Amino acid sequence: MNMDVRIPHDLDPETKADTISREKAYSHQLQQAGEWVHIWRNAGQYSNLSIFDVKDNERLHEILWNLPLFPYMAIDVTPLAVHPSDVALLEN
Amino acid sequence: MNMDVRIPHDLDPETKADTISREKAYSHQLQQAGEWVHIWRNAGQYSNLSIFDVKDNERLHEILWNLPLFPYMAIDVTPLAVHPSDVALLEN
Amino acid sequence: MNMDVRIPHDLDPETKADTISREKAYSHQLQQAGEWVHIWRNAGQYSNLSIFDVKDNERLHEILWNLPLFPYMAIDVTPLAVHPSDVALLEN
Amino acid sequence: MNMDVRIPHDLDPETKADTISREKAYSHQLQQAGEWVHIWRNAGQYSNLSIFDVKDNERLHEILWNLPLFPYMAIDVTPLAVHPSDVALLEN
Amino acid sequence: MNMDVRIPHDLDPETKADTISREKAYSHQLQQAGEWVHIWRNAGQYSNLSIFDVKDNERLHEILWNLPLFPYMAIDVTPLAVHPSDVALLEN
Amino acid sequence: MNMDVRIPHDLDPETKADTISREKAYSHQLQQAGEWVHIWRNAGQYSNLSIFDVKDNERLHEILWNLPLFPYMAIDVTPLAVHPSDVALLEN
Amino acid sequence: MNMDVRIPHDLDPETKADTISREKAYSHQLQQAGEWVHIWRNAGQYSNLSIFDVKDNERLHEILWNLPLFPYMAIDVTPLAVHPSDVALLEN
Amino acid sequence: MNMDVRIPHDLDPETKADTISREKAYSHQLQQAGEWVHIWRNAGQYSNLSIFDVKDNERLHEILWNLPLFPYMAIDVTPLAVHPSDVALLEN
Amino acid sequence: MNMDVRIPHDLDPETKADTISREKAYSHQLQQAGEWVHIWRNAGQYSNLSIFDVKDNERLHEILWNLPLFPYMAIDVTPLAVHPSDVALLEN
Amino acid sequence: MNMDVRIPHDLDPETKADTISREKAYSHQLQQAGEWVHIWRNAGQYSNLSIFDVKDNERLHEILWNLPLFPYMAIDVTPLAVHPSDVALLEN
Repeated sequence: MNMDVRIPHDLDPETKADTISREKAYSHQLQQAGEWVHIWRNAGQYSNLSIFDVKDNERLHEILWNLPLFPYMAIDVTPLAVHPSDVALLEN
Repeated sequence: MNMDVRIPHDLDPETKADTISREKAYSHQLQQAGEWVHIWRNAGQYSNLSIFDVKDNERLHEILWNLPLFPYMAIDVTPLAVHPSDVALLEN
Repeated sequence: MNMDVRIPHDLDPETKADTISREKAYSHQLQQAGEWVHIWRNAGQYSNLSIFDVKDNERLHEILWNLPLFPYMAIDVTPLAVHPSDVALLEN
Repeated sequence: MNMDVRIPHDLDPETKADTISREKAYSHQLQQAGEWVHIWRNAGQYSNLSIFDVKDNERLHEILWNLPLFPYMAIDVTPLAVHPSDVALLEN
Repeated sequence: MNMDVRIPHDLDPETKADTISREKAYSHQLQQAGEWVHIWRNAGQYSNLSIFDVKDNERLHEILWNLPLFPYMAIDVTPLAVHPSDVALLEN
Repeated sequence: MNMDVRIPHDLDPETKADTISREKAYSHQLQQAGEWVHIWRNAGQYSNLSIFDVKDNERLHEILWNLPLFPYMAIDVTPLAVHPSDVALLEN
Repeated sequence: MNMDVRIPHDLDPETKADTISREKAYSHQLQQAGEWVHIWRNAGQYSNLSIFDVKDNERLHEILWNLPLFPYMAIDVTPLAVHPSDVALLEN
Repeated sequence: MNMDVRIPHDLDPETKADTISREKAYSHQLQQAGEWVHIWRNAGQYSNLSIFDVKDNERLHEILWNLPLFPYMAIDVTPLAVHPSDVALLEN
Repeated sequence: MNMDVRIPHDLDPETKADTISREKAYSHQLQQAGEWVHIWRNAGQYSNLSIFDVKDNERLHEILWNLPLFPYMAIDVTPLAVHPSDVALLEN
Repeated sequence: MNMDVRIPHDLDPETKADTISREKAYSHQLQQAGEWVHIWRNAGQYSNLSIFDVKDNERLHEILWNLPLFPYMAIDVTPLAVHPSDVALLEN
């Protein structure tokens, strides 16, 4: 899923700094819990490509809705499945 | 990067089967070499989301250009970088 | 029909809370009346997918125009009909 | 999810009729199994709006990939969750 | 609603002429029945802008699905309602 | 032609009410003069579909440019011509 | 108005040459009659930007519909009017 | 080239009037110098279609960058060349 | 400018090989003449990003129109000028 | 890569002038270091086309993220590789 961030330029700087710092802590916590499996920076963009592994869509929505930067994000969700060419399937 | 496959419906079935089978072998080999790091199926699509870890753009292009299904694909390449919120950065 | 909500970040918080609360009550009332047949959250979005069953386009417009969040919504209306593969048709 | 069907005009009529008939039987079976919860015709389109209730993305992909009309479809998958305004939540 | 026609250039000329002639007769009949209220040519396009007045979406879909040119059309349906500025409302 | 209205949420309410009321009067006057032939509400949208019958593009532009809501509108103009399938042509 | 030409690569070469030659003659004739006022090549495209000066939309459609290349064109019509900054207005 | 103007609704009215008046004078001067060859109003839009005849891209950019309304414009530049069907070529 | 190549899969292989080989020779010749200044491969695409330095739009069109792969290309031309931040301007 | 700049019209003029001046110095420094290889102005746009030669995506992102105008830019990154038709390959 892609998350594009667009913070309004007239947002008060303190609110901005606080929101970004809470976003980072929130992401760390979900990565450590194993639900936010990958996060990459899209080079040259204020956006990321993330992979989540959650039990259902309810949980996915709960995680995203509570992102501190959610009000400033455009999120694009793509459901993923195992690919038949994945080498992990060879090992089983 | 996203790869969408659109095989023409009038392609000869043998050519089609052979191409798909060579595609799978090629993908296995690059995954085992560590250059094709992830491959997921986009659910409900004949397309995948893949992550590559290659030494430069020359190598990336060489890999993609030689995909047996390349002539039938629309590929969308997004350069990725480490994200500052990645927990892997905490461990260092 | 899809309804995307985009509340301006400089809207006064009280007006915002009041509007959201009136939106919920309005939706409950129309669901109980049988005109708003389904409502789902689009996961990871401040938007919903809804199905209406109304007597004509006049009534549909009246319902949507009076949504408390209407001024902040982008609505996409798709007229639906019975599908010939619907199992409900087998039972008749 | 939306499924748009675009059957090539030079497809052999027998193959076409057979594919459409297998599509209908397949849809009936999944509706009766409770996985294909709703299907509506998009009025004036050769396409439908369908709602699925499946245990995970693997199952969703398996169902869609095996649609007899899959090679001629453009499918758009949107993950849905329960909406907080759903009246069903009031009853619990 | 807009209807764009794109007839494949390799369609057999007799089939083409026959389809176009049946399309015209079909349109005449529905206009005379009062369901196809307006039809305009989009200048410089092989497409038209039409207004229908039908009892429900089922009937609308039935009419469009049976257009002889339907397999070659891209149709865009927009539900319309009475506009509050319509002078017809002044007269009542 | 489609006219989409998007009034900024921070517009002063009196200016807004006055502009909307002048828009309605202006539309009535042009409908009564026979230049603004049809106006329909696009259901669920703050927008309309209108048909004009004017002597040339100069007059069309003059009418639209002077719409009280013009500064807040996105207008999409499509030139229309008589359609060869129009039943009105049968009567001549 | 823009006219993009896309001639199918499997069109018989004689038909193609003949069509292109009739297109040129037709354009010459309309330019000489003063209805096709300007024609420019969009650099690097098989397309042109043309300006027409015709008495109404009926005539415009008639001209375009009879372009020998019409079946292979995507045409985009934009109605133009005199601009208030045109120096021609100073001279009157 | 198309130039779309979108003046923010909260721009101070004096600045707005002054900018529009300087824009008109600037356009007159360039038209009289023969570099701004044509200007048409796109009917129903706050935008124009203009043709420039300048010695190179440096000069084109200089002209456009100095338009008083430049900060509020979205400009779309299309390089044009002589068209082989232009009747002017017959005369030489 | 971007040039995307899409060779139809049913093109005769000899014609295809010959066209590609003529394309390469043509590009070499224009690069050596100094008109085709840069050519880069868009990684993972059958397309390139090229920079031309030509005396006018007539010459640009002539070069592109005569590309052996022109009939299979979608070309996107963007006029470039010197940038005020270019370090080459410091040296003068 | 394309960089489009859109500076909000209500930005304080001093901040604006200072940001633009720092942007220019920063670009000069990277060009002199050989990482920012080319910069061209897109004629008629407040945007540029730039070519970077950096050791990896991490460095590319670091450069772009620190552009003084980054918060007001929409950047579009396209990874490039050597093109097989590049004449530089002939010389080796």
